[in-house]
Amino acid sequence: MIKNQIKKVAFTWPNGYYNDGIKLGIGVSDKLDFGYLVSEVPANAAGTYTTNQFQAAPTKLTKTMINQDHQLQAVVMNSAIANSCTGAQGEADAHEEQQLVTDKLQLDPSLVGVASTGLIGAFLPMDKIKQGIAQLSPHHGDNVTRAVMTTDKQPKHACVQLEMAGKKVTITGFAKGSGMIHPKMATMLGFVTTDAAVDGDFLQQMLSQNVDTTFNQITVDGDTSTNDMVVVMANGKADTPELTSVDDADYEAFNTGLHTVLGELAKQIAADGEGATKLVECNVSGALNEMEGQEVAKAIVGSNLVKAAVFGQDPNWGRIIATVGNTTAHVDTEHVAIMVNDVPMVADSVAVPFDEQAASQKMGADKVVIDVDLHAGDATGQAWGCDLTYNYVKINASYHT
Amino acid sequence: MIKNQIKKVAFTWPNGYYNDGIKLGIGVSDKLDFGYLVSEVPANAAGTYTTNQFQAAPTKLTKTMINQDHQLQAVVMNSAIANSCTGAQGEADAHEEQQLVTDKLQLDPSLVGVASTGLIGAFLPMDKIKQGIAQLSPHHGDNVTRAVMTTDKQPKHACVQLEMAGKKVTITGFAKGSGMIHPKMATMLGFVTTDAAVDGDFLQQMLSQNVDTTFNQITVDGDTSTNDMVVVMANGKADTPELTSVDDADYEAFNTGLHTVLGELAKQIAADGEGATKLVECNVSGALNEMEGQEVAKAIVGSNLVKAAVFGQDPNWGRIIATVGNTTAHVDTEHVAIMVNDVPMVADSVAVPFDEQAASQKMGADKVVIDVDLHAGDATGQAWGCDLTYNYVKINASYHT
Repeated sequence: MIKNQIKKVAFTWPNGYYNDGIKLGIGVSDKLDFGYLVSEVPANAAGTYTTNQFQAAPTKLTKTMINQDHQLQAVVMNSAIANSCTGAQGEADAHEEQQLVTDKLQLDPSLVGVASTGLIGAFLPMDKIKQGIAQLSPHHGDNVTRAVMTTDKQPKHACVQLEMAGKKVTITGFAKGSGMIHPKMATMLGFVTTDAAVDGDFLQQMLSQNVDTTFNQITVDGDTSTNDMVVVMANGKADTPELTSVDDADYEAFNTGLHTVLGELAKQIAADGEGATKLVECNVSGALNEMEGQEVAKAIVGSNLVKAAVFGQDPNWGRIIATVGNTTAHVDTEHVAIMVNDVPMVADSVAVPFDEQAASQKMGADKVVIDVDLHAGDATGQAWGCDLTYNYVKINASYHT
Repeated sequence: MIKNQIKKVAFTWPNGYYNDGIKLGIGVSDKLDFGYLVSEVPANAAGTYTTNQFQAAPTKLTKTMINQDHQLQAVVMNSAIANSCTGAQGEADAHEEQQLVTDKLQLDPSLVGVASTGLIGAFLPMDKIKQGIAQLSPHHGDNVTRAVMTTDKQPKHACVQLEMAGKKVTITGFAKGSGMIHPKMATMLGFVTTDAAVDGDFLQQMLSQNVDTTFNQITVDGDTSTNDMVVVMANGKADTPELTSVDDADYEAFNTGLHTVLGELAKQIAADGEGATKLVECNVSGALNEMEGQEVAKAIVGSNLVKAAVFGQDPNWGRIIATVGNTTAHVDTEHVAIMVNDVPMVADSVAVPFDEQAASQKMGADKVVIDVDLHAGDATGQAWGCDLTYNYVKINASYHT
């Protein structure tokens, strides 16, 4: 019912946002590497952040800004260098960058966030950053979504529209992913903008809940970055009544729209994991509770052996069931069932005969879906990952040099 | 002091053991795939077993036999097929195999263990197994250590000698490893024999303790097999007084010898991980307690990104510190220090200048040692793994077919 009210549409920004993305030459690559995202008016804002004990300076600063009053108007961002593990100098650099944007846009510093992604341990080239901030100007294309890419093959966006109180509302998100992806509370960098009006605390609550079943359920390589951050901004430019609680008429529609955008971005990140040729989706059923269903699904898409088998189109279900057994989730070990791209391979925890060649061929699709029934309850779980390929090794054996 | 009493020696069996390894053609490969290990007299025995919820039929059966009275005289073993996730048929097959060996050697069934390793989900070819058991005969070479290999490039053994009560005692172990290696309580298959006399319960206690700092501290790919098992047999043929407690005069020497054998096997498994070109050792210092030191060390050698960087000889310490931050161990996040093959790269959690080319060259060695100081206490931890290579992907994208 609600789902039908949410329309996925081609990339477009909500009312009242502009952005820019330019090439500063922060790293060695030839791509856009610096940009900003700005709301014309202060927006209510929410964020989730990496749980890595080494939280990068920009991530820390943005978290502090958002937590002050759940408001934000601009985020300046760069790729190539993460400004992480850079000590006092790194914190000073993040502050200086924030101050330069504050001056340029004539805003209160508390409304300006900073985001960085790239190599850990290197310092931001502040001279270039200064020049870059001077060059940024308002545009309505998608350059900012390209400026945050590192080893991403393509920009990741998701855009939905819905009606709230008779007005058209747009929710648009973008993200960068690729490597060091195993989010705990957020992914590398994700930004969602909307022109709906949403109370800041309530927006935080919705974001945190939805991140648990979207960004937190993807994995590329089991490594959690120091710079992970998802930020949502709601500037109210659609002139809708402010959402403040789950009892509001339009809560469910907006929340579904937000979940859709976060889920689409999460899947795009998994599909474009470093070196990936395929998206892997795992649907767990028969779990004792949702937490255990999610745990098992994420373990399966995270197993190197399962990921390598998917790359090789090898219907090697033994690796899937071994991964199930390595979790602490409740499992009826006599009655597990497994299907891969609709081919039943296991029933009652033992092999069922299937045509291995045909199954292998089906695994050649862009998306491999693994269905696992634990027969331990009625709850479900879902997670997304990618295959493990020669290119993953290649990219990561030579990322730094 | 004690260490000096333990001599590492070339491969030899303790008194009173024989073995055999033959080629039955259980799988498609051309190698030895079936064998047994036998003590001339009943030996006291101990074992540790996989914590995977899907414990394979042979692992279950051997555990039951050992737990009855901590005695064992023979173990029959095969590679190529794991007899795991094979239901009632698989359990019947393991029992039949045990019975056939029992009949051949005229032993009580409770003295016969069974071990299998290889593809999950396939059934043992019982006709071949019957023929194989008829063919086995007593030898003193190392064929059994080759019969258990799967994708292992070479057999893994370790052998030490020491004196106990004026008598020479030998402790000899062998193991198979390679893939699905992330032991929790044991590794794929490991067998240790000694001619010392050791009480069964006490042997179990020593094994369990030593496994925690050896086999349980290695990882190849983060996947724990359904067939993991380490078995120790002590047949007393060296005519030494039976060890029964930590207060016995020779306890410390024997325990150090046992730890040495288990540790050597564990390192050999890590170095010969699927596709590996290098052994990676991580030494953590400054941990709050030993458990946290071990946790951090194992997390670092288990990180795909660290493993790929080691393969590429990329001194990318950011991946090491990010992995530290992803653990729940206590860390002084302002004062972490990191060295790789003796090159200091991080002090007080920020980069120290180093010659990247020279550091990269040093990482070309067969062994890469990562030293991490958490500055949170006085405890240490140690773990072993290997690099992540094109060949790991190749082997595991085509293991089954």
